[in-house]
Amino acid sequence: MLVFYSVKISLAQQNYIIGDFEHNTKKIISAIHQAIAEESQLVVFPELSVCGYPPRDFLNFDDFITQCQSAIAQIALHTHSIGVIVGAPTINPQAPGKDLFNSAYYLYEGAIKAIVHKTLLPTYDVFDEVRYFERSTEHTLIVHQGKRIALTICEDIWNTGHNPLYTITPLDILSKQDPDLIINISASPFDYQQDQKRRELISFICKTYQLPMIYCNTTGAQTELIFDGGSVVSDHNGHIIHQLPFFKESVYTIDTEITYPELKTPHIQPIQLIHDALVYGMREYFDKLNFKNAILGLSGGIDSAVVAALACKALGAEHVLAVLLPSTFSSDHSIDDAIDLCKRLNITHHTIPIQDVYQLSLNQLLPYFNNPVFGLAEENLQARIRALFLMALSNKHGHILLNTSNKSEAAVGYGTLYGDMCGGLSVIGDVYKTQVYELAQYINRDTEIIPRHILTKAPSAELRPNQKDSDSLPEYALLDNILFHYIEDCKGPDEIKKLGFDAEVVDRILRMVNRNEYKRHQTPPILRVSKKAFGSGRRMPIVGKYLD
Amino acid sequence: MLVFYSVKISLAQQNYIIGDFEHNTKKIISAIHQAIAEESQLVVFPELSVCGYPPRDFLNFDDFITQCQSAIAQIALHTHSIGVIVGAPTINPQAPGKDLFNSAYYLYEGAIKAIVHKTLLPTYDVFDEVRYFERSTEHTLIVHQGKRIALTICEDIWNTGHNPLYTITPLDILSKQDPDLIINISASPFDYQQDQKRRELISFICKTYQLPMIYCNTTGAQTELIFDGGSVVSDHNGHIIHQLPFFKESVYTIDTEITYPELKTPHIQPIQLIHDALVYGMREYFDKLNFKNAILGLSGGIDSAVVAALACKALGAEHVLAVLLPSTFSSDHSIDDAIDLCKRLNITHHTIPIQDVYQLSLNQLLPYFNNPVFGLAEENLQARIRALFLMALSNKHGHILLNTSNKSEAAVGYGTLYGDMCGGLSVIGDVYKTQVYELAQYINRDTEIIPRHILTKAPSAELRPNQKDSDSLPEYALLDNILFHYIEDCKGPDEIKKLGFDAEVVDRILRMVNRNEYKRHQTPPILRVSKKAFGSGRRMPIVGKYLD
Repeated sequence: MLVFYSVKISLAQQNYIIGDFEHNTKKIISAIHQAIAEESQLVVFPELSVCGYPPRDFLNFDDFITQCQSAIAQIALHTHSIGVIVGAPTINPQAPGKDLFNSAYYLYEGAIKAIVHKTLLPTYDVFDEVRYFERSTEHTLIVHQGKRIALTICEDIWNTGHNPLYTITPLDILSKQDPDLIINISASPFDYQQDQKRRELISFICKTYQLPMIYCNTTGAQTELIFDGGSVVSDHNGHIIHQLPFFKESVYTIDTEITYPELKTPHIQPIQLIHDALVYGMREYFDKLNFKNAILGLSGGIDSAVVAALACKALGAEHVLAVLLPSTFSSDHSIDDAIDLCKRLNITHHTIPIQDVYQLSLNQLLPYFNNPVFGLAEENLQARIRALFLMALSNKHGHILLNTSNKSEAAVGYGTLYGDMCGGLSVIGDVYKTQVYELAQYINRDTEIIPRHILTKAPSAELRPNQKDSDSLPEYALLDNILFHYIEDCKGPDEIKKLGFDAEVVDRILRMVNRNEYKRHQTPPILRVSKKAFGSGRRMPIVGKYLD
Repeated sequence: MLVFYSVKISLAQQNYIIGDFEHNTKKIISAIHQAIAEESQLVVFPELSVCGYPPRDFLNFDDFITQCQSAIAQIALHTHSIGVIVGAPTINPQAPGKDLFNSAYYLYEGAIKAIVHKTLLPTYDVFDEVRYFERSTEHTLIVHQGKRIALTICEDIWNTGHNPLYTITPLDILSKQDPDLIINISASPFDYQQDQKRRELISFICKTYQLPMIYCNTTGAQTELIFDGGSVVSDHNGHIIHQLPFFKESVYTIDTEITYPELKTPHIQPIQLIHDALVYGMREYFDKLNFKNAILGLSGGIDSAVVAALACKALGAEHVLAVLLPSTFSSDHSIDDAIDLCKRLNITHHTIPIQDVYQLSLNQLLPYFNNPVFGLAEENLQARIRALFLMALSNKHGHILLNTSNKSEAAVGYGTLYGDMCGGLSVIGDVYKTQVYELAQYINRDTEIIPRHILTKAPSAELRPNQKDSDSLPEYALLDNILFHYIEDCKGPDEIKKLGFDAEVVDRILRMVNRNEYKRHQTPPILRVSKKAFGSGRRMPIVGKYLD
């Protein structure tokens, strides 16, 4: 029988607004009262709950920290009958070192009973914690109603494997102090492999230390970072006995008098996770900015079709406006396919041909062109007139323009800056072209929402006669494979070639990726669904010559 | 008499290309031979010289590190008769911790004699060193030809003041080992106060430890980061006895048998430093990308006039193409002033009115507008048609478009995304509007290069009839003052109000800054000349509600 703790504990998996202290505090207090109503003795909130995660450089403002402290004081008033663990920055009282700690506050009986600081401060990929925080050098259990708790913050439990990132492992120290359980408060962002990694890690740790764990993760999305929640409870054998939902707030009270069987978590396909994350991330972006409506250009191709379908799911079809912007190079089937899609999605569409403005612009420019031969400038001009129209409608109607570029394009620079690279949010910029097809198939799993023809025709930018993506790029299956090795796995050219890829193709693709860093510097935020997305998690020089 | 070291030492203040190992290695070897010719016994190169600084996420590629190691091996072959101190990443042999160190290699007699790792890893503003490097825990002098050297890397000497950033001060440890001198190899980027801060720090340290110092900084620009060089030699009394030039490569050998008088450095006005840095940064951007020509739109206003003048200085007038893009709202004086400027600068200009394309675009869009009243959409449409034309010419001619937005505009979002916010490089995006006027006056110090009328008329975007910047913004002197407190000094609203500013104005401006983060996310790289520029040194949430 599992009796790891003779109290009820609540996990409050919540979604916060960065810097909105009133909103966050109210939400936290409300969950405290729910936990009290459920006769809980302890309620656990995620990392940096009072200010939202990641607060980034707002942490440099004294005023911001003061407001965090006020929020803690306010929350403490509601802790007379229940213990509360909540995350907030703390001021470092020592002069040397960074001015702040990333802390977990243990509140009880109306007061701050203990503050535990984070030891392992992730500073890689999208994380910048050493930018703000000093690491903890003290490791002591907290004791709540006689129970000894190893209280940790997110990364604190992640120092495992044969090449650990840190020289100290907090649980090695804490486990020697005879704890009854581990609590971890987290703000761990989603990628399509992350939930599995988290559960494996938690199981491993519980088994290693023979301790149960309460793992409370945040949810919501903060611009490009999607937090999936999926908080878990594990017993001391490393069996996951409960998991909270994904992409959703939830307060859950676990009765520690009851023995739970191991949870049989169904294996969810990565493409379903990606789908759900994108829908959630988009909805969150609109909600948090107080926008209701989206606009996007429909080309008749698969990328914009998938984004349109995701937008309908996220915002409702009545909040999505599609614009067809055909040129003389647009094929009939493109227009037909796009209109067919709008009908199937039940979204409004306008058709605004770009030909006249294109021709007039060209006439105005031709006297100043050094050569009149149709080329890149003319291709880009079309893409930019489309953006011109879309942005005018966006400004006029207050709709956010959705960017529809995929990760393969973004990688090799197959897109027009200030043209199809425009938008408030890039929905599928972290989804390779081959995955975009998978997404389309997933969207079509029950009914043909995206017209079949869009999935079967050859991809084309339709910026010149009879253009095909394959004219200038390798087949996407090959391209995406090489890109994955380079971007996600940080393999260099020789390593990739050794896997059997053609040397010339590898060199050409890697050069394209590096040379187009300047374009990616100016793209909208990209919803992150992989372990390595373009954006703040991948920081490359623009001016440089590596592999060039 | 100052005899701090009985050998000649050379400082090689060089400009590297990130990841171009062949170029960098060749340059380093060439300076070694110059130093040998000058009978030097030791030559010192800047931080991470073999790969260039900052290499950013290229450091995550094993291949990149391997190439750094090969470069070191190659350089070592040239050190039989001279000691060499050169910067490169080193692989951390311990499994726990980050995989790399940021190191100074001491090469001599054809071999690696010692490797010193950096202890203080800057992780704030534009710096991300903990992202890549483990800090050193060992602190030992190196000994070259009997002389004991406290070898430090950039930030290692910066842990001073009443609130130091780090809990360890390497020079406190090293100074106890009886060194003869301090050597510091740096990659310290420019801002208009930085040289003075550096010299004050070096003087302070030399005086504190009663040791002379050789401080070798890098030069060149890496996209937005400008490295000014200005390497110095200080005696043990903290007297600066030599300084290398700014914004320029230089190999200098100091004869340590000779007593040098204290250098009287003339005080250079910040605006001159900013001017020289912008010219250098722009030239470097073009050189390193192998581009020769720039294009920019001239409005007749001060921002584009200043950028045009700087571009002529950086690239030569024959490499600058100006385009006038008047609308019906452009005043006659704007066109006249712009043409006058082109004549004075001796640059080619084209005039392409935007009216026809604007009218045609509007006609196409009107059926889909929910209201036909002239507003923001129509204003932005004009700015975007200008960008459309400029980018078409940029693509056709292979000219890089220069962005002409200033810091005040970028701060409050007074600019059109995909319109006047376009460009390959933002030249004055870290220069407040009031400083742009100072720059213009500095440019005009000898002759009237920028027509006087451009400096005296009221600023206007000319996107609607009789528009003035002051219609929607406070006077720039006030605006810039508030912005400086918020951006450079990280003061919160209450602190700024306490300085005597109107509460309502402060709240409005800070809200504008925060709400326009989404625009700044998509701007070109901004040449950094202040201690806090928009870009990688200021990381703010886009979705958030702090001060909103």
